[in-house]
Amino acid sequence: MTSSRVVTVAAIQCPLGGSREENVERVISHVETAAARGAQVILPPELFEGPYFCRHEKTEFFSMARPLEDNPTIETFSELARRLGVVIPISFFEKANHAYYNSVAMLDASGELLGLYRKSHIPDGPGYEEKFYFRPGDTGFIAWPTQHGVIGVGICWDQWYPECARSMMLEGAELLLYPTAIGSEPADPGLDTKDPWQRVMIGHAVANVVPVVAANRIGTEEDQSFYGASFICNHRGDKLAELGRDEEGVIVQAFDLDELARMRAGWGFFRDRRPDLYEPLLTADGERWG
Amino acid sequence: MTSSRVVTVAAIQCPLGGSREENVERVISHVETAAARGAQVILPPELFEGPYFCRHEKTEFFSMARPLEDNPTIETFSELARRLGVVIPISFFEKANHAYYNSVAMLDASGELLGLYRKSHIPDGPGYEEKFYFRPGDTGFIAWPTQHGVIGVGICWDQWYPECARSMMLEGAELLLYPTAIGSEPADPGLDTKDPWQRVMIGHAVANVVPVVAANRIGTEEDQSFYGASFICNHRGDKLAELGRDEEGVIVQAFDLDELARMRAGWGFFRDRRPDLYEPLLTADGERWG
Repeated sequence: MTSSRVVTVAAIQCPLGGSREENVERVISHVETAAARGAQVILPPELFEGPYFCRHEKTEFFSMARPLEDNPTIETFSELARRLGVVIPISFFEKANHAYYNSVAMLDASGELLGLYRKSHIPDGPGYEEKFYFRPGDTGFIAWPTQHGVIGVGICWDQWYPECARSMMLEGAELLLYPTAIGSEPADPGLDTKDPWQRVMIGHAVANVVPVVAANRIGTEEDQSFYGASFICNHRGDKLAELGRDEEGVIVQAFDLDELARMRAGWGFFRDRRPDLYEPLLTADGERWG
Repeated sequence: MTSSRVVTVAAIQCPLGGSREENVERVISHVETAAARGAQVILPPELFEGPYFCRHEKTEFFSMARPLEDNPTIETFSELARRLGVVIPISFFEKANHAYYNSVAMLDASGELLGLYRKSHIPDGPGYEEKFYFRPGDTGFIAWPTQHGVIGVGICWDQWYPECARSMMLEGAELLLYPTAIGSEPADPGLDTKDPWQRVMIGHAVANVVPVVAANRIGTEEDQSFYGASFICNHRGDKLAELGRDEEGVIVQAFDLDELARMRAGWGFFRDRRPDLYEPLLTADGERWG
């Protein structure tokens, strides 16, 4: 007898340039739509409570950060997750005493908070000045055992790192999710990163024999346009669902996690890994000092 | 002043079902063609001396293995590399006392043997019974400082592993090359791995901001058809050159390694890596025993 365990995932894509209340209402509406279409795991974009403030380096924006334990947005979505019976990773700007992080609160389908992941890889450059705000995360990479599969979540810049994807898989992840805020490069108008952005995550899907879900925002905020292109791909890297550069909505896709586990074993990638040779990965430049 | 260092790379794609002499002559001819088109780094396919014998598990095939130091094929190509002034990684079946490896001898443009890389990841399954022949390599991943750039070479199954690509980059590689023998799956005729095969290497290109060159064989050997699709992609994963599934020939592409180094620094991926969080990569399943 061949086991089957089907989980339906969704990504939300929308503009998020409004107030916190407007953005939360908009995301709630999309979560409800996705759930109505059968989704059990629903991914909103990164830092969806507001405009992507990291284009500026302004001290005043630190006041938007909230602790995990006193966070009305997380409370609202916890209630929604419970009501709809869906898993929702909530991306938010976290204040933890004097440290600030770009974090995800993982909400199970019961509404329970499973815990916290803090973005490990922090970008910095024109339009994406995240090192001004966020301390690099200290949680390590996490695979969450939810009611709808074991789920790994990386946050935006994390998505470019094979180490992040592989680490979540080694912890047991069955689906990889990436909330994102990416678009134009104000300092380099000719640079369109949309294709590389999709390709590197498609590479993770193939290398780990796992579906990948990416949710990005759309719309123009001041001089920056977010390019959407949210997608869901299968374990071969086939894009099964994708939204356009200006398209608001949700994409929904079902996967059989048991069938994926069989295929993952059959491919043999995890059988043939060579941890004894991977010491260079624990260095920044191939050499260890001291 | 902006520095520039242009290197032209090539991949060879051809059938290799004949005798050793026929195959070597065929590859020599393609090396000469590629060099005439300006190539300075020329990649033949994996184990090009003969048919892909690993489809069977037969003791008699061990007699084809040769030591690095007493190897007429390597001697022939060393002379060719010197004459044409080109770098050639030579894939061969290596006998080292009682151990056998799937290896690459790296020949610099002077004809000098720079050293040896032994395939680290060994596949095993119907049609690809490599674990019967090859001991998993013990050399670790290598970036070779050649006359035409610092070059990393992974061998076939290695190409599915982000750890291999990243390790070569951390050692300083500026180009990643993958000699290959891949095609149909005799036990699973409906499975076509061509797209995932390209996509995972395209993922390495993006994640490491580096061009990737893959050279595969074509043609049918007994019940197995090799699908070619050799390609060269840039640091964004754009396929700049590609051969068809049945097309014999060479593809040639120039890259400015200094410009790539600037773009690699600008992207910031190597700046933002978190080796302190990558311990799980040194495990097989997220846990350390003992």
